[in-house]
Amino acid sequence: MAATKLILALLLFLLVCSSSIASSKNSRRPKPCRRLVLYFHDIIYNGKNAKNATSAIVGSPAWGNKTNLAIPNRFGDVVIFDDPITLDSDLRSTPIGRAQGLYLYDKKEILTAWFGFSFVFNSTQLKGTINFAGADDIMKTTRDLSVVGGTGDFFMTRGIATLMTDAYEDDRYFRLRVDVQLYECF
Amino acid sequence: MAATKLILALLLFLLVCSSSIASSKNSRRPKPCRRLVLYFHDIIYNGKNAKNATSAIVGSPAWGNKTNLAIPNRFGDVVIFDDPITLDSDLRSTPIGRAQGLYLYDKKEILTAWFGFSFVFNSTQLKGTINFAGADDIMKTTRDLSVVGGTGDFFMTRGIATLMTDAYEDDRYFRLRVDVQLYECF
Amino acid sequence: MAATKLILALLLFLLVCSSSIASSKNSRRPKPCRRLVLYFHDIIYNGKNAKNATSAIVGSPAWGNKTNLAIPNRFGDVVIFDDPITLDSDLRSTPIGRAQGLYLYDKKEILTAWFGFSFVFNSTQLKGTINFAGADDIMKTTRDLSVVGGTGDFFMTRGIATLMTDAYEDDRYFRLRVDVQLYECF
Repeated sequence: MAATKLILALLLFLLVCSSSIASSKNSRRPKPCRRLVLYFHDIIYNGKNAKNATSAIVGSPAWGNKTNLAIPNRFGDVVIFDDPITLDSDLRSTPIGRAQGLYLYDKKEILTAWFGFSFVFNSTQLKGTINFAGADDIMKTTRDLSVVGGTGDFFMTRGIATLMTDAYEDDRYFRLRVDVQLYECF
Repeated sequence: MAATKLILALLLFLLVCSSSIASSKNSRRPKPCRRLVLYFHDIIYNGKNAKNATSAIVGSPAWGNKTNLAIPNRFGDVVIFDDPITLDSDLRSTPIGRAQGLYLYDKKEILTAWFGFSFVFNSTQLKGTINFAGADDIMKTTRDLSVVGGTGDFFMTRGIATLMTDAYEDDRYFRLRVDVQLYECF
Repeated sequence: MAATKLILALLLFLLVCSSSIASSKNSRRPKPCRRLVLYFHDIIYNGKNAKNATSAIVGSPAWGNKTNLAIPNRFGDVVIFDDPITLDSDLRSTPIGRAQGLYLYDKKEILTAWFGFSFVFNSTQLKGTINFAGADDIMKTTRDLSVVGGTGDFFMTRGIATLMTDAYEDDRYFRLRVDVQLYECF
């Protein structure tokens, strides 16, 4: 009797165990193990705003130049950035890190971009980096990039980052809301 | 007797269970959980073909310019692209998505490139993106890049993409066959 | 009695099994499954050293050019490289591979960079590639990038690469020590 009960308990344990293994790999969309909603702010250099610009055109197509975004749809512009990251949408809030890397506009017909960049944190709350790569289909309300890795507090993480254009002004400033959803945490 | 049989069944289950855990992480080369063979087509801008060009030189070395590939071996050229993806090798087939991002030629002595880009799908069959990064040793028949992440239908995927130069014409057009082998699927 | 012993053995096995699953995903910092310490050497093109240069400026800001690093802090320079990888710190040692890709300087106030590149191996000892992405906070003694994938001998690998500036001369040469720590091996 005791043996049979033990066996039943074991079977139950095995079921739970195997289903949790399955869910960690096969379920359609697991819950994030960590989530951060942050904002970053990009002010592009236009030849006159060296003091407060946070990004600059460093590559442009044959028909472009480095102080004006290319026409049409900025196609062919490569931009390097070092943008402040804030917890709310206010550009004047104390930054909790910097978004650093490059983006490029890659389509003639509509506005689309490709991003390769890092969130770099070095505060008492957060240390380390999150690395991103992916396409930004700017005309869509939300679009997803990949979190391809991390270091420090984000050691070996992976996940998804959902971008939203939170503000857009005069071709010179944009603010992105980034909903970082991490599905591998260590 | 009944207890012993149950225990034997359990042991068998455990063996199967543990070996499948092992194979998912330790085997030399698992089978892909998903595979796609696709083509993408790149027509580079040469100053005269604005209408049908799909890519443009946006960075070039001191000795280069933006309407001619650099000599020798294109070393130093950075190219932004928005190339149609097709199911077969015909450039005129209906695209099922776009390959968007950048490649750059990084070696003086022979033709090699480095790619950072995404496959962007938005059809009834396929939605989402696959993100790639890696070296392209062009002189080899096949070469492997990394699939570093994905979104939508390719949520959190990882794997390998085997490139083959399927066609190459007049320094202005190339077609790559991409064998995407995904080893992490959700 | 025999049944009870078997059950106890099973329980023990299960404990070991489940704890190893837990440790593979949840422990704070696992031990690397593979580790390589390598060096790579970068000699930037300055208009006069075409013969031994291994990298070249291919993008620069409005105030820069392609034979001099931009002032201040090289902000806005994009560099393509094909650098020899050696087992020790001697530039003249036989290379065991090439580091290929791009880096860019992304901050006005201090020296920081962003890297997207690959280690490409093709020797009798090592074949395949390791792909890297991440921020390089150059003023720190060590800084971590992500290993976002690999191919060949490094099929599907992930991990961390700790960079150290091992030498730095005349704005024209630098040597990085790269401690590659892989946490996913196949």
